[in-house]
Amino acid sequence: MTELHCERAFGFRICLERGVLDPASPALARAIGDRRALIVTTPTVAMHYGTAFRRACAAAGVDVALAVRSLDEQHKTMDAVMGVAALARSVGIGRRDVLIGFGGGVTTDVVSLAASLYRRGVACIRMPTSLVGQVDAGIGLKSAVNAGGVKSALGRFDPPELVLEDPTWLTTLPARATRSGFAEIVKIAMVRDAALFELVELVGCSLVASQFTKPEAVVLPLLERSIELMVTELRQNPFEECLERLVDFGHTFSPALEIESAHVLTHGEAVAIDMAISTEIAVILGHVTSAEADRIVAVLHALGLPTTTAWATTPLLAAAADAAVAHRGGALNLVVPTGIGTAGFVRERDEIGSDLLDFSLAAVTARTERVSGRPAHVPARAL
Amino acid sequence: MTELHCERAFGFRICLERGVLDPASPALARAIGDRRALIVTTPTVAMHYGTAFRRACAAAGVDVALAVRSLDEQHKTMDAVMGVAALARSVGIGRRDVLIGFGGGVTTDVVSLAASLYRRGVACIRMPTSLVGQVDAGIGLKSAVNAGGVKSALGRFDPPELVLEDPTWLTTLPARATRSGFAEIVKIAMVRDAALFELVELVGCSLVASQFTKPEAVVLPLLERSIELMVTELRQNPFEECLERLVDFGHTFSPALEIESAHVLTHGEAVAIDMAISTEIAVILGHVTSAEADRIVAVLHALGLPTTTAWATTPLLAAAADAAVAHRGGALNLVVPTGIGTAGFVRERDEIGSDLLDFSLAAVTARTERVSGRPAHVPARAL
Repeated sequence: MTELHCERAFGFRICLERGVLDPASPALARAIGDRRALIVTTPTVAMHYGTAFRRACAAAGVDVALAVRSLDEQHKTMDAVMGVAALARSVGIGRRDVLIGFGGGVTTDVVSLAASLYRRGVACIRMPTSLVGQVDAGIGLKSAVNAGGVKSALGRFDPPELVLEDPTWLTTLPARATRSGFAEIVKIAMVRDAALFELVELVGCSLVASQFTKPEAVVLPLLERSIELMVTELRQNPFEECLERLVDFGHTFSPALEIESAHVLTHGEAVAIDMAISTEIAVILGHVTSAEADRIVAVLHALGLPTTTAWATTPLLAAAADAAVAHRGGALNLVVPTGIGTAGFVRERDEIGSDLLDFSLAAVTARTERVSGRPAHVPARAL
Repeated sequence: MTELHCERAFGFRICLERGVLDPASPALARAIGDRRALIVTTPTVAMHYGTAFRRACAAAGVDVALAVRSLDEQHKTMDAVMGVAALARSVGIGRRDVLIGFGGGVTTDVVSLAASLYRRGVACIRMPTSLVGQVDAGIGLKSAVNAGGVKSALGRFDPPELVLEDPTWLTTLPARATRSGFAEIVKIAMVRDAALFELVELVGCSLVASQFTKPEAVVLPLLERSIELMVTELRQNPFEECLERLVDFGHTFSPALEIESAHVLTHGEAVAIDMAISTEIAVILGHVTSAEADRIVAVLHALGLPTTTAWATTPLLAAAADAAVAHRGGALNLVVPTGIGTAGFVRERDEIGSDLLDFSLAAVTARTERVSGRPAHVPARAL
């Protein structure tokens, strides 16, 4: 028998700064250096930032080919990945060059996976423009595409070399996308950081209303803290070998809710509803107080996120829990708050029977009505 | 700026033993353990070993789904990879389960890449049945598929957890496949091990004629030594970050020869011709003696491998050298023998001008005729 042992070290940086596309900024020159780059973006991002980007590249003297592609959820496919790889070949990207994804989650997913596969792996830079991209999805190692009707069926854990973010890109986001992205900030605050949670209680509304411009002094610190918390979780478990992940808070029932609503609910909205239900389960199991649950529902409500929906039924939640057990190696690992800023796990599937799920749904509806002062189950289309 | 640093350790084993599919062998039980496995194989391998494999699985008590797929060069596609991934999902392969490729190079490539992508990466075992698979292609980290008319356009460097090989599988190989696989043994011997080269001179013919059964005492040691040498090279450079690779001997001109011949030449035959031409260049540049070159051409001839072909022309070799420069980060890095069992690099493209290539082609033809005692340029179809 012959054995071979190796280690592969990797590191990546997340740079959050204003003015990445200012002609005077060193950000692009520092990121790309003397390599050839292919940057892939979407029509919407090109409309807002295409001209600034071209000017910034010219000022930085970097060698960049720009491609605009429609990359929305229905283009999150291996065909799109192969299209980006073919484009990379046609513009002469070599094994030491770099692919850049500038846009939302689908753009960074598709470009990341293309970089993982092109010439057996080239460098990748992500420039996420959405809030969820900047604080959550864009800063991990994960990439994926849908295949055979299965969401994220194929993908990789490969680190980008750099995630380059500018909070001013958030000013062109639709309000609903900002609210949805905020669900991930609430998530990480809930499980790790009471101070961040209190900051969201204080300024979340204003940030949503001002498209992340006001209060100005809070924008960078709030994003930086959210990112730092995500990276701390990532550092401990970059390849998800451990299946007890605090960042799965709000991510047990939400995949089923997204699918059941035929994606009328955004990811963030489904996560918000899941967090409210998981919190109610935690109240019933005695992990968190009802007063703390009130604060969670209140902050989600203030951010304009839903906490109830008619799509959430006991059979749907039960099926989602079963799928989570299959996905998490036989354990449920439902993340539940144990206070504001701390969380734990409900590990066994049989701890959340149908009666408990029934009761949780009724309780979250009652709490939502009481906290928000309006009837729950707002029709999803009105969100 | 936030930074994240990680290391990912990996190791893989190569087990070469007789009787892997004997019901009494512990090999399969040891390899698969209590995981669920999907094994993908080809109609030809299933015909030879399907029954034995099923019996061995039953005896070992392992939980294996067997799928038979046509996996030849034209199926070396992302579609085939996605097909294997869909199959894995349909038979319930979880993130801690395993995919197994049992067959030739395309089978192990496609299954390896499917394992790299399914659920963002699951374990992979390769069971290469061809000689080239057992000593070369099957034991590296590389996988790839063709795309957009480009050979191996998309792929990965991901280690399999185990390469499980049985030399008795070589008994059912067509003679031409055995001869072609031998080209890689000659390659590694030429650049690293004079003793292995001498062993091939002594018993190569007999091993080809007997389908790797005679001389029996030599079979395992010769394969083991070839594998050990390949792994030594791999250990130093698993991700090909260094572009000066001794294992590229015979792999500078051969890709163009394979394509120019429309794959009438096998990979091993093209490698043999490349090695003969590279050796002639080394003679001209004074790196190796003409007597040593005679031994190289003689051993290839004895194994039934070609050393000349009408497809090898100066313009083709020049274009292949240019492609190598592009692929090797600007350096030619042509591997040339500096003796029997040692080699070096011709690093600069301008060291091999058209005159030198012309002269090398004429010289290899003359040497082949002298050493083999028959006219060179045997029509490829007669090989």
